[in-house]
Amino acid sequence: MAEIAVIGLGSMGYGMARALKRAGHAVLGHDVNPEAVARFQAEGGVAASLAEAAPGISTLVVVVLNAAQTEAVLFGENGIAAKLTPGAVVISCATVPPAFARDMAARCAALGLLYLDAPISGGAVKAEAGQLSIMASGAPEAFAAARPALDAMAETVFELGREAGPGSAMKAVNQMLAGVHIAAMAEAMAFGIGQGVSPDRFMAVIPKCAGTSWMLENRGPHVRDGDYTPRSAIAIWPKDLGIVLEIAEGAGFNAPLTETALARYRKAVEMGLAGADDAAVAKVYAAESGLVLPGEAEK
Amino acid sequence: MAEIAVIGLGSMGYGMARALKRAGHAVLGHDVNPEAVARFQAEGGVAASLAEAAPGISTLVVVVLNAAQTEAVLFGENGIAAKLTPGAVVISCATVPPAFARDMAARCAALGLLYLDAPISGGAVKAEAGQLSIMASGAPEAFAAARPALDAMAETVFELGREAGPGSAMKAVNQMLAGVHIAAMAEAMAFGIGQGVSPDRFMAVIPKCAGTSWMLENRGPHVRDGDYTPRSAIAIWPKDLGIVLEIAEGAGFNAPLTETALARYRKAVEMGLAGADDAAVAKVYAAESGLVLPGEAEK
Repeated sequence: MAEIAVIGLGSMGYGMARALKRAGHAVLGHDVNPEAVARFQAEGGVAASLAEAAPGISTLVVVVLNAAQTEAVLFGENGIAAKLTPGAVVISCATVPPAFARDMAARCAALGLLYLDAPISGGAVKAEAGQLSIMASGAPEAFAAARPALDAMAETVFELGREAGPGSAMKAVNQMLAGVHIAAMAEAMAFGIGQGVSPDRFMAVIPKCAGTSWMLENRGPHVRDGDYTPRSAIAIWPKDLGIVLEIAEGAGFNAPLTETALARYRKAVEMGLAGADDAAVAKVYAAESGLVLPGEAEK
Repeated sequence: MAEIAVIGLGSMGYGMARALKRAGHAVLGHDVNPEAVARFQAEGGVAASLAEAAPGISTLVVVVLNAAQTEAVLFGENGIAAKLTPGAVVISCATVPPAFARDMAARCAALGLLYLDAPISGGAVKAEAGQLSIMASGAPEAFAAARPALDAMAETVFELGREAGPGSAMKAVNQMLAGVHIAAMAEAMAFGIGQGVSPDRFMAVIPKCAGTSWMLENRGPHVRDGDYTPRSAIAIWPKDLGIVLEIAEGAGFNAPLTETALARYRKAVEMGLAGADDAAVAKVYAAESGLVLPGEAEK
């Protein structure tokens, strides 16, 4: 019998489901893609349909793309929320507007369900290792019910408040910065190439200087090495910065750096780079200015 | 008899002159402001006019605002370069375009002078402590002649090439990032305030997440504490990002994040914040969106 279900077996959810299973939980994996489900079952995941297993599930981890998918999973046609047993906890991991998180929490509460607003950070490798950072907020009872799953999935759980909303707000703040910083790394590295600063020298010097960022040190080597194997894809950013700007707009907040970064990622998508590693936003700059990045042939 | 002269006794140059003196050098300080000169002489600086002392000076450290002032000091009316003895080294510390540095090096070479392209980083506190980072490039002979002064002024000297230019290029790259990151910190912290993320919580969480940057960790506390005592002033950024964009434009390089950040600092200057700490760029966001930053009264 499954005690935990993970809805969404993408690059993050699949690793999280494995980390939960490794910690000794009986885990049911669910996805719109039946191949992902079959693969997880072959690895020892519980082989049952979500609808049949639902009444026995104590913890539902929802790791889908966005707010619309989260709502569909919980309250859409064949939504799972109504099939869960009161007292179960929903751990909602997508990046969503804080107001949406509050709404989901209220609708869950109406069914007697606990809800943890719990966006995740750290990438697929940390998901697989059970070492995510989770920006969580919710009722103490929701934290208590979610604790065994959080322990298995996360290295760090930030406890950001006693109601849904602050978790998603902090995630939006972090994504705003992360998205701007990746694009800034790309802008600076490409600018440097044009000025005779090699990517090798850039990565040797800037991490020791005031211009560094976590993202520069993490993504800069991808550009330096010409390696755009997607660890986190360009496609994440039009989505996540779009959510950030939707929140900002709703609050009458002017976020010009975020808007500018978003436009860079959209241009990268237009160039066919949606599936490439997000460091490939450097290719937007290179294409505009006729610069040659590492790993690319001279034109 | 002075062996080292420091031209420009501003917040950086004054500290550097003191660090040189503390290391045992006979240091002559020069500035357009006679009070700064008198103050340095009262602290034990060599009391002589620059013109009289020039022939005996082996190392000239130029720490003025920009390229125009650097050129005026060296080659303007009463320029010092022609008065120096061949073999002396000029250590040029202002943020300038790489092409300007190459030009200065060539004009110095024509007089038999050595030239080190040596922009500085680290702020007034590190200048005073002799712990600057210096992004240096120049002939091996220029490095050798400059070494005693570099040892006294710097904790880290990046040796970036055997000719003038790469030092200034790396400085431009670093300033591009640093300027964008300060504005991004301000954008994200102000956005967070509007979403219920307090500056205290922002600074407790984001430095442990992928959204962090060196500047966020250094300048963020100024906003959190409502302390805009200028450690590095807003006014630096219209100048330095202006130089960066001048270089970019000359190279046909499109730098939209840098342009957007520059516009934020210009708006801060329009708000009368030129002399405030550069973290005060957060006030631009607060004013636009009616948010209240720490230390400000509710309107």
